[in-house]
Amino acid sequence: MALRLKTDYLEGFLTKDEIKAGEAKAKAAFDRVEKDSAEKSQPVGWLRLPVNYDKEEFARIKAAAEKIKSMCDVFIVIGIGGSYLGARAAIEFVKSNNYNLLPKETPDIYFSGNSIDGDALHDLIEICKGKRICVNVISKSGTTTEPAIAFRVFRDILVKQYGEDGAKERIFVTTDKTPKPGTLKEFADLEGYETFVVPDDIGGRYSVLTAVGLLPIAVAGCDIDAMMKGAEKAMIETDSFDIENNDAVKYAVIRNLLHDKGKKSELFVTYVPALQYTAEWWKQLYGESEGKDNKGIYPTSVVYSTDLHSLGQYVQQGERILFETVLNVAKPKHEQLIPETENDVDGIGYIAGKSLHYVNEKAFLGTVYAHIKGGVPNIVMELDATDEENFGYLVYFFERACAISGYILGVNPFDQPGVEMYKKNMFALLGKPGYENHKI
Amino acid sequence: MALRLKTDYLEGFLTKDEIKAGEAKAKAAFDRVEKDSAEKSQPVGWLRLPVNYDKEEFARIKAAAEKIKSMCDVFIVIGIGGSYLGARAAIEFVKSNNYNLLPKETPDIYFSGNSIDGDALHDLIEICKGKRICVNVISKSGTTTEPAIAFRVFRDILVKQYGEDGAKERIFVTTDKTPKPGTLKEFADLEGYETFVVPDDIGGRYSVLTAVGLLPIAVAGCDIDAMMKGAEKAMIETDSFDIENNDAVKYAVIRNLLHDKGKKSELFVTYVPALQYTAEWWKQLYGESEGKDNKGIYPTSVVYSTDLHSLGQYVQQGERILFETVLNVAKPKHEQLIPETENDVDGIGYIAGKSLHYVNEKAFLGTVYAHIKGGVPNIVMELDATDEENFGYLVYFFERACAISGYILGVNPFDQPGVEMYKKNMFALLGKPGYENHKI
Repeated sequence: MALRLKTDYLEGFLTKDEIKAGEAKAKAAFDRVEKDSAEKSQPVGWLRLPVNYDKEEFARIKAAAEKIKSMCDVFIVIGIGGSYLGARAAIEFVKSNNYNLLPKETPDIYFSGNSIDGDALHDLIEICKGKRICVNVISKSGTTTEPAIAFRVFRDILVKQYGEDGAKERIFVTTDKTPKPGTLKEFADLEGYETFVVPDDIGGRYSVLTAVGLLPIAVAGCDIDAMMKGAEKAMIETDSFDIENNDAVKYAVIRNLLHDKGKKSELFVTYVPALQYTAEWWKQLYGESEGKDNKGIYPTSVVYSTDLHSLGQYVQQGERILFETVLNVAKPKHEQLIPETENDVDGIGYIAGKSLHYVNEKAFLGTVYAHIKGGVPNIVMELDATDEENFGYLVYFFERACAISGYILGVNPFDQPGVEMYKKNMFALLGKPGYENHKI
Repeated sequence: MALRLKTDYLEGFLTKDEIKAGEAKAKAAFDRVEKDSAEKSQPVGWLRLPVNYDKEEFARIKAAAEKIKSMCDVFIVIGIGGSYLGARAAIEFVKSNNYNLLPKETPDIYFSGNSIDGDALHDLIEICKGKRICVNVISKSGTTTEPAIAFRVFRDILVKQYGEDGAKERIFVTTDKTPKPGTLKEFADLEGYETFVVPDDIGGRYSVLTAVGLLPIAVAGCDIDAMMKGAEKAMIETDSFDIENNDAVKYAVIRNLLHDKGKKSELFVTYVPALQYTAEWWKQLYGESEGKDNKGIYPTSVVYSTDLHSLGQYVQQGERILFETVLNVAKPKHEQLIPETENDVDGIGYIAGKSLHYVNEKAFLGTVYAHIKGGVPNIVMELDATDEENFGYLVYFFERACAISGYILGVNPFDQPGVEMYKKNMFALLGKPGYENHKI
């Protein structure tokens, strides 16, 4: 197992019997996901993806990534929500949250089209000046406002910089499979852009291990074979319902039980800044899957020890509405040591010569004990390392647990009806044809 | 006024009478802050800081910033919590969240010593290789574990790179005023580092407009005179208790009333990615000031429209425990236009030629209407622009409102007793002398 769930820090908050009693609901939820898959009644293509993925397209992704690496200094990835967070999470997890600033052989990677802020777009255009650029636009329909704006801007820049023919070589489109009239797929085929598929049977927030995430991840120099292997491992290990040996089921059960006890918000905790966007990805997955019908656990996140000096006070002694899910990484990428000094003016001589990881582990453990004493139940997950295989494992683990958890809660974990509401108002305010009679 | 609070979007959640009725408690809270200041019974030095600040030190900060700008490519700012978030918030707010990646005349600025992650430190060392470096360590005592580790590492690097004498010129220390034995101040004086003051009467989370924040902010090329002017403006405009004309009081009253109605978490919303760290700074200010005695509003944040495609679903239709405080910026830095295209395959031709800011404004308004309809009260604040003066204004506004709000809630908004608890456990686990008998 790449990941181990520890229930030791739930003592006093949940009994083993309560967890056992959650089994019936969890079994029904687990079976329902299997049924969704068998009957294709919900978009659960991610369930067998680690073995069923399109091998021909996978090879094309790797080839395109090599081509992109050789052709550009800056790779612009245009997408929002599930077409943004997964790839960013993976690259920061495997490489660094300072990926763009580190010396490296692979292109800088910027995510655009995920907001409507003109200053952010302006800055990115400045950054691109004088650089060789490639673009990957990721949009199922091609009509989502945020990525559509960014694609117009960068397509313009590419055509000016390389001409229509040159631009063709540098634009990669991840979109619907079928070229229906008026779609991005039709346009891409017409223009001659290479295209990849956003599968119909996998929702955006479950899509990181499809071309949606894999192309940018491969451009960053990550081993996407290892990533799929990790996901497959997680699939196999969570494939049979057995609450004692299936941590995805156990996690789904525990978080619902804690929520039933008045814990309104789950705080996802990492001690590794490079996992900040893994937390963001997790927040979309759970928030969008469960936050409906006036239900759902409010997903929030922190990076410790940074935020122990910020939100730590509230977590320790504020209103008791939180539980924490701590993702602890067993093995760091680098062993970084604390130097000896002649004097000990800073009072940390007692840890000189130790690795930062050693100290970070103690900060993690000390914090878990402090918070459970303060009334905050802690679910602790230990992950082996921050490499491709572990990322793939983690993604699959959380996806499967999320589907089960949503069904335990009694919602449909695969739709997102609330996301349309702001858009309709925005379209009406912008005077979009067809929204003249929309009442705000 | 640089900032205007709008109560229009509270209709149906709070009545004007309820807000009026909150006045008595707010008056007592307002007066108590004034009394704290007069009697020096709490660390409220920030209250008169915009006019009382040390002008001699302020001039030295500007001179040091000029020296640093000329001496280095990379400026490492070592600090955690209040010695980190304010400066980072300011630089991203005024310059860009991509400040380090943009072409510019000023040094790259990295924040270190705000976690114990060895991989993050390793990456930063890689980034610094071959560059000219200066360091600013910010720590009251000098003994906080996170910055102490980073300072050991970077002091080592500087001494190796420039020798002891060269390092002296490149290390700037912001710390306690008085050189008590065994303190960082004593050590800095002994070594001959230039020092600046962390004032005794201003807590970390209220300290961004002291040397703590101002030195890094000035190195980034921000006009710190304008920033202090903005703070002074806010001080004057919030100086008399008058709930109708004092938005800081009004904000403090409203957020407590919403909390009384079961809104457990305040979601700070911005539509400008460069304000992400302004939100982080705000979360420390409010979380650490109010999260105690099992009380407090849980401070959380999002960047929209990005997170409308992530947490948006939960906000729209999840459990009704949220209210939003939206900081809307009236004027962008740059006018970025949406290009025309020959075809309209993306369906956004109806906004071609418009500025992104225009569309972002409509997204903001459309979202406010969608969320209040969904049961989420919205406090809307309109800020003029993202420049130095507005940052100074905003900081002071939120600090004053926070102090008042904490007293309305019935807590001490100036202490943080819970922050020590994880540290004690960590010290015991690390075997720090003096913690042998600490029981975990």
